[in-house]
Amino acid sequence: MTPALIARKRDGGRLSDAELAALIEGAVSGAVPDYQLAALLMAIVWRGLDARELTTWTRAMIESGQRLRWDHLPGPVVDKHSTGGVGDKISLCLAPLCAAAGLYVPMMAGRALGHTGGTLDKLETIPGFRTALPPRTFGRVLARAGFVLAGQSARLVPADRLLYALRDATATVESIPLIASSILSKKVAEGAAALVMDVKVGSGAFLPSLDQARALARALISLGRALGLPVRALLSAMDQPLGEAIGNAVEVREAIDVLRGAGPPDVVDLTLRLGAEMLVLGGIARDLRDGTARLERARASGEGFERFKLGVRLQGGDPRVVDDPGRLPRARHSRTLRAPRAGRVSRVDAGLLGRAATLLGAGRARKEDRISPGAAILLHAKVGAPVSAGDPLCTVHYDDEARARAALPQVAGAFRLSPRAPAAAPLVLETLGRLR
Amino acid sequence: MTPALIARKRDGGRLSDAELAALIEGAVSGAVPDYQLAALLMAIVWRGLDARELTTWTRAMIESGQRLRWDHLPGPVVDKHSTGGVGDKISLCLAPLCAAAGLYVPMMAGRALGHTGGTLDKLETIPGFRTALPPRTFGRVLARAGFVLAGQSARLVPADRLLYALRDATATVESIPLIASSILSKKVAEGAAALVMDVKVGSGAFLPSLDQARALARALISLGRALGLPVRALLSAMDQPLGEAIGNAVEVREAIDVLRGAGPPDVVDLTLRLGAEMLVLGGIARDLRDGTARLERARASGEGFERFKLGVRLQGGDPRVVDDPGRLPRARHSRTLRAPRAGRVSRVDAGLLGRAATLLGAGRARKEDRISPGAAILLHAKVGAPVSAGDPLCTVHYDDEARARAALPQVAGAFRLSPRAPAAAPLVLETLGRLR
Repeated sequence: MTPALIARKRDGGRLSDAELAALIEGAVSGAVPDYQLAALLMAIVWRGLDARELTTWTRAMIESGQRLRWDHLPGPVVDKHSTGGVGDKISLCLAPLCAAAGLYVPMMAGRALGHTGGTLDKLETIPGFRTALPPRTFGRVLARAGFVLAGQSARLVPADRLLYALRDATATVESIPLIASSILSKKVAEGAAALVMDVKVGSGAFLPSLDQARALARALISLGRALGLPVRALLSAMDQPLGEAIGNAVEVREAIDVLRGAGPPDVVDLTLRLGAEMLVLGGIARDLRDGTARLERARASGEGFERFKLGVRLQGGDPRVVDDPGRLPRARHSRTLRAPRAGRVSRVDAGLLGRAATLLGAGRARKEDRISPGAAILLHAKVGAPVSAGDPLCTVHYDDEARARAALPQVAGAFRLSPRAPAAAPLVLETLGRLR
Repeated sequence: MTPALIARKRDGGRLSDAELAALIEGAVSGAVPDYQLAALLMAIVWRGLDARELTTWTRAMIESGQRLRWDHLPGPVVDKHSTGGVGDKISLCLAPLCAAAGLYVPMMAGRALGHTGGTLDKLETIPGFRTALPPRTFGRVLARAGFVLAGQSARLVPADRLLYALRDATATVESIPLIASSILSKKVAEGAAALVMDVKVGSGAFLPSLDQARALARALISLGRALGLPVRALLSAMDQPLGEAIGNAVEVREAIDVLRGAGPPDVVDLTLRLGAEMLVLGGIARDLRDGTARLERARASGEGFERFKLGVRLQGGDPRVVDDPGRLPRARHSRTLRAPRAGRVSRVDAGLLGRAATLLGAGRARKEDRISPGAAILLHAKVGAPVSAGDPLCTVHYDDEARARAALPQVAGAFRLSPRAPAAAPLVLETLGRLR
């Protein structure tokens, strides 16, 4: 029977609700073997899933596992998800600030893969910090700190774990409906009542083109509507890295800077913007301006910082690191790249720097690879900055000389200098979906 | 590395010779798992393989196993292959007639699957007949009888066995390059020096449309040229079944009728035509007319019949069956379908009758199913025949009443009567490829 279903999708036909549910159930039970799923997934990459098919497929994924409920919490449960970028440490400062403003943020985050970093790898540079939490601990941290940053539980959406691993091995990741179902199945299962999506656009993004990012945003919004999960989507620029730090420990430090009232302006801006959307979606703020003001107060008062410290402590991490980020691991060596001539920085390519950071050990080329917690690229100049010959552009931190040799040409190739300043580009390109 | 290759094919790119060879080697060694192959196969169904890719892919398949050589045989080695039809018993009479005319025909045949019959299943209705021959026996039968009709050796093209099973389970059979590589890899490995392809067209064919059949014929000819195997392709009509017998034992009997100088005219015509092509390709006949004359002599003299009997004996079968086909197994029950009114038979749908015969037990819905050797449909009227009300259209032979109940409506639905005679349609629609 399964070959006939694969053939129908291959030929551009539709699969019924019962057929899709049987395929997902069969995937989880083992009744549908990997090779049939792989062929089906490639047929879906080719032919897509229509709105009805996508909703059914995602519902079946959600029903493959446990579904968390937070009815007992006294505030709204809202999450944020990013499609992944370079230097994207927003979750680390956003979650405690939103929690301080009254939201509950049950974030299930991922690991570095390819050229983008992973929130879990960053947090694990804090000594003792645990990202694998039993369900009860997950709920307790969320209730007490107002946020939790952990890995996906094996009990939630087992169909996604299985399909994702298979998609990764079979070049079937790049499908808008499959991406949308993977993201939203987990958000619905984790019990979020609303979701803000940060869909990255540009060289450092998973889907670099604006068209594809917009298509994904639209798919997420309409699928969210079908599943009863309001989704608001921001398309944000990922041509250059976010902030000044790319790496694991260095990004934790930069997030702490933001919570302390400092930090690079783009990280602060995007944090406040995404957080304000979350507060409005959660019904805590009247509008984006009100939401921003609440987050700014939580930041200025140090409440966001204290929430972060509480969360770190509740997840087993050493809270002294939050007060003194000098305790975070550092790489042994560093080398600074300098401007060969005067000019304006016209490009700092996020994709190239992300790949260079992976080569340095900040990320993983393969899932089995170990992270080097101190490996980093620290930017001293971003797009638009005027530089003189000999000014530092960035400093590369590394433990392994051979890795540095491999990465340095890519780092140098990521920078471009021009005689004139480039046109200023907005950080948030478009906003899609209803705010209330 | 494999996911990157799958991704390239998915995106419409080319794979290099080394990459394709590594994929086939990895498939056979197990280094490339089934699920990656399945995704790759679906990407190939989608994007195709260009001429160079197809040649490399097929060469790698051939190199995955043994390659037979027949240099010691005193005559040319030429084979015929059909894409499969309903009532297609041509191989059974063609091989001994060609052998009697001086060719060596090392036929590796298949089993019934879907709505088409299988030469091996037909031969196995002869008591004792063995289709699984050790390589040495295969060669000995070929040398002595001039032909051999056996199953594919496990040592020949193991990559095809593996890929074919996977394609069958993943709806990736329907791809012209994959079909062409599967057919020609086996023909090159079995040591054929030239090949005549019978590409069926019509409702009972694997590729019903003329366009697709022509595309397959062209792919076979150009791939054959690249592999050094001259291929001549005939597109032949498969709108109605070939001959009057559909089933296993009944088709052996009809083939024996042809070898005895009788048999239905379409089976005789197609046998002589395909055989004449083989004799010209093998350099035994000057032209098709000469080839046909040689085959007619082999048929009239009984040499073809004697060769068949010798082959049956050498493969362990009871040669008395060839002299007395009444010894072949028969089904227990029969029922005759009659014309509800007078008219001309305007359709005898091969696809419907093939499926009905499978339901009766003549074929397999699944590979594990057992064949019912006597299950059959015997046609009493073919397209163009004038019938009166009550005249028999066909007789259904069966062992199992429930199966007959399921099949009879399909059998009835296969016949159409019209007031006027339909336009006569040729049996061979087109001929492609060079004859010498």
